[in-house]
Amino acid sequence: MSNIFQVYILYIWCDCVNWRFRRNDYMSKEVFVKRDEDYGKWYKQVIANADLIDTSPVRGCMVMKPHGYALWEAIKDDLDRRFKETGHVNAYFPLLIPLSYLEKEAEHAEGFATECAVVTHHRLEAQKDENGKTKMVPTGKLAEPFIIRPTSETIIGAAFARWIESYRDLPLLINQWANVMRWEMRPRLFLRTAEFLWQEGHTVHETAEEAWEETEKILDVYEEFARDHLAIPVITGEKTENERFPGADRTLCIEAMVQDRKAIQAGTSHFLGQNFSKASDISFAGRDGTKQYGWTTSWGVSTRLVGTLIMAHGDDDGIKLPPKVAPTQVVILPIIPKEENREHVMNAVNQFANELLELTYAGLPLRVEIDSRDMHGGAKNWEWIKKGAPIRIEIGPRDIEKGTVAVARRDQSPKEKQFIESTKFLKEAENILEDIQSSLLNSATTFRDENMISIETMDEFIKFFTPLNTDKPEIHGGFALCHWAGSNEEEEKIAKDYKVTIRCIPNGDKFIEDGKCILTGKPSNRRVIFSKAY
Amino acid sequence: MSNIFQVYILYIWCDCVNWRFRRNDYMSKEVFVKRDEDYGKWYKQVIANADLIDTSPVRGCMVMKPHGYALWEAIKDDLDRRFKETGHVNAYFPLLIPLSYLEKEAEHAEGFATECAVVTHHRLEAQKDENGKTKMVPTGKLAEPFIIRPTSETIIGAAFARWIESYRDLPLLINQWANVMRWEMRPRLFLRTAEFLWQEGHTVHETAEEAWEETEKILDVYEEFARDHLAIPVITGEKTENERFPGADRTLCIEAMVQDRKAIQAGTSHFLGQNFSKASDISFAGRDGTKQYGWTTSWGVSTRLVGTLIMAHGDDDGIKLPPKVAPTQVVILPIIPKEENREHVMNAVNQFANELLELTYAGLPLRVEIDSRDMHGGAKNWEWIKKGAPIRIEIGPRDIEKGTVAVARRDQSPKEKQFIESTKFLKEAENILEDIQSSLLNSATTFRDENMISIETMDEFIKFFTPLNTDKPEIHGGFALCHWAGSNEEEEKIAKDYKVTIRCIPNGDKFIEDGKCILTGKPSNRRVIFSKAY
Repeated sequence: MSNIFQVYILYIWCDCVNWRFRRNDYMSKEVFVKRDEDYGKWYKQVIANADLIDTSPVRGCMVMKPHGYALWEAIKDDLDRRFKETGHVNAYFPLLIPLSYLEKEAEHAEGFATECAVVTHHRLEAQKDENGKTKMVPTGKLAEPFIIRPTSETIIGAAFARWIESYRDLPLLINQWANVMRWEMRPRLFLRTAEFLWQEGHTVHETAEEAWEETEKILDVYEEFARDHLAIPVITGEKTENERFPGADRTLCIEAMVQDRKAIQAGTSHFLGQNFSKASDISFAGRDGTKQYGWTTSWGVSTRLVGTLIMAHGDDDGIKLPPKVAPTQVVILPIIPKEENREHVMNAVNQFANELLELTYAGLPLRVEIDSRDMHGGAKNWEWIKKGAPIRIEIGPRDIEKGTVAVARRDQSPKEKQFIESTKFLKEAENILEDIQSSLLNSATTFRDENMISIETMDEFIKFFTPLNTDKPEIHGGFALCHWAGSNEEEEKIAKDYKVTIRCIPNGDKFIEDGKCILTGKPSNRRVIFSKAY
Repeated sequence: MSNIFQVYILYIWCDCVNWRFRRNDYMSKEVFVKRDEDYGKWYKQVIANADLIDTSPVRGCMVMKPHGYALWEAIKDDLDRRFKETGHVNAYFPLLIPLSYLEKEAEHAEGFATECAVVTHHRLEAQKDENGKTKMVPTGKLAEPFIIRPTSETIIGAAFARWIESYRDLPLLINQWANVMRWEMRPRLFLRTAEFLWQEGHTVHETAEEAWEETEKILDVYEEFARDHLAIPVITGEKTENERFPGADRTLCIEAMVQDRKAIQAGTSHFLGQNFSKASDISFAGRDGTKQYGWTTSWGVSTRLVGTLIMAHGDDDGIKLPPKVAPTQVVILPIIPKEENREHVMNAVNQFANELLELTYAGLPLRVEIDSRDMHGGAKNWEWIKKGAPIRIEIGPRDIEKGTVAVARRDQSPKEKQFIESTKFLKEAENILEDIQSSLLNSATTFRDENMISIETMDEFIKFFTPLNTDKPEIHGGFALCHWAGSNEEEEKIAKDYKVTIRCIPNGDKFIEDGKCILTGKPSNRRVIFSKAY
């Protein structure tokens, strides 16, 4: 009897330990590090505090929690509209790619080889182990293994080869929303994960000119989307040969500067020439009846944009969401000092929320939430600051009496609070949201411009990218505008020595001027952007 | 010289053969089989003619072409709205599931074991073969293999275990839009493919009652969606123990009857009891402070709905789309008898299209397309019949003169054409679309009711399900309403002997009445539905 009792106690104790362990295993939610102190830690913490992501048992894969996934949905919906407006249609292609398909384009195959998840079996056999527990063992070996798509040029190319017969079938303008997998050894939430969600556009054109026009058009779509929807001012430009997509003739990109002054490649648009059309036989009967190969492009953005959004706009308190992507644009926090006030306050809150729900911002109904959870008002307010909601509104008995609401904006200090007549707020809500949207874009633009500096010599260059030896260990210079006429090998050496790469040869007249390459002294007629990058 | 010439001729010849072969390899687009003659062949052909799908090099996987994918998008958008309206939020979980996760729930593991794609390696090595061609070889063997999710109960359960701490965190109502993979040995377009797109809802509740309420609520959402959006009258009911989801306590379903009178299980909603919460430790501190296990549900519909749509509404000419899901609700076909009419006609067509685009149907802007391709009018008209567009409008010089448009409805004979004043059509467009939507629902309902018959004896039963030995080899009886009190083994034997299963124990008073089991003669108090099924 006493033995059984001991076992029972032990069982309870184990259960408690297990319980505690499980809770602590979860991503920590406290913020105790500022951006200046440890940017990487800050990034993880604000993501946890905004409840965007949970880690997963699958190495390098993340669980996108509802608030995080809602950001991707807001990105997806707006981009999808832009693609459709420019004549693209969606389709869906298989997740698995036969190995032989990847082999068709050698450069492409080698580019992705080291990060492919390979499917080799198609069934499991349930076996019982010695304890009678079911154990699953792979069986049904495949004659030809498949990889999980790291990108879909080869499998989509094979379909296009079947679909296109004549020049009349062109241009073919297809987009796919999908998950892809690139086995990452050093994953980073949103920015570099083994599985990620993205869109990949794939188009075929009759001539090189038309394909190049498409490559540039999509870059414009990306730039406008980043600026007008995400409030992120990106630089558009072209990658050097070293940084091109494996198999592409030319790669265009949008590059964002985030708050530790590093670059994030936020989207790419590739001119693939005839490389994939020849590899996959994407050919057609031309206007003169002869067989011709198509000119193809591909382009994509991914859940990486969510990481870019966080790093571009956050502050030491947490993330800051531009109103156009915020799942909750206006949160209403009822103030209920005594239980007897509850009904009175909640009636006013519900009425106000209903009036807000009739408004629109950027052509869509306002996204409004009432947070009536029974918790301390300060803690609740703080939660919404950390979640980045653009506007927080408090309504209590005194506000109702005066006909006002207390309005706090996420782009202003948490201490600022304005008392506005509720009817006035209803009239101005759209303007206030637009004002927040532009203030975020303006801050990010100012920050980027302040940290994009012309660098003329290697000495300056080295100094610019050396971490300041102060209490800000990770902060370096930013974007260095340099004249460059070095070779691919010299570019690689700089990357190796200083962890700095050419982000792009930027578009725009202001970067065109005569000068001398910072490394070789050879003449150059335009500046490129060097930067550390994610 | 002559040798080289011969080689060159041979080369051209080979190229032509290859060219021809490639074109013919593509899914055949002609219709030469009627529904009554060979339903399976008819199904494949109308899909090819409506340009919904392309076959793929990956066994059992399909390429969803733009028109096919647009149907899924129309399904997704409407269902997503319904889920959000009932309090659910979207999230995203990893594609890969560790083997050990699957092992947690033995019944579940065994249920899916035979159809799992297994990832065993995480990289490829590029090797050159004797001809210098790059060959990819799997390398980087994983310590623990992963499976591609066939469904996500186990990996989502593990996340829920981390998220839920107290009864205050409940209910947790999550949905995921994702691709899943079940290795199918006998694939069928849309209805049974190795990879398919779906939504899977996963919820946790404090009590069994609440979880059961959720299971039933979702079944209602599915039923309403099928009826009001897809114009498919489904029967709701419960699966017998034999047909339950592996690991579920109870499985509810919606069953559709299609035109060969077989059943399609179009959606399922599972009450999982505490099976998965105990396996994954989804526990919480209850109202009394003690540790309790959650009650969970899961539910899903998939791209199978697109197949159901085709089989429920098609006719011998092709598919028929209910206006609510049709990517193009109104197609305008300009009639240009002479080149000199072109500008005049196109101006009128564009103006009419712009006026249509200002209208709405079912709360969304009208989806209108102008097909101005330079091809024979009859062929073009026929293409849109086969694509299932609800309304076709012809506008030519004579119509413009008279101020009329020629309107043809897909739910009527291809020969019927009404000349309506264009201003009148603009006023009535919404009503006509709604009329087509209901006429499709009515036809499907009548057909279903006519072929759902009470069967009282095994003799009748056998006769009912024996193919009519006429020129309609595949057509059998339909839904047999039978009294049933047999055992699981007897149910299995019927399935084996006659390829007929109990589709569900249907909801509704009309199925409740006293009677005797058709097999055993034991007393029964309600009828079940037996049918052949996809």
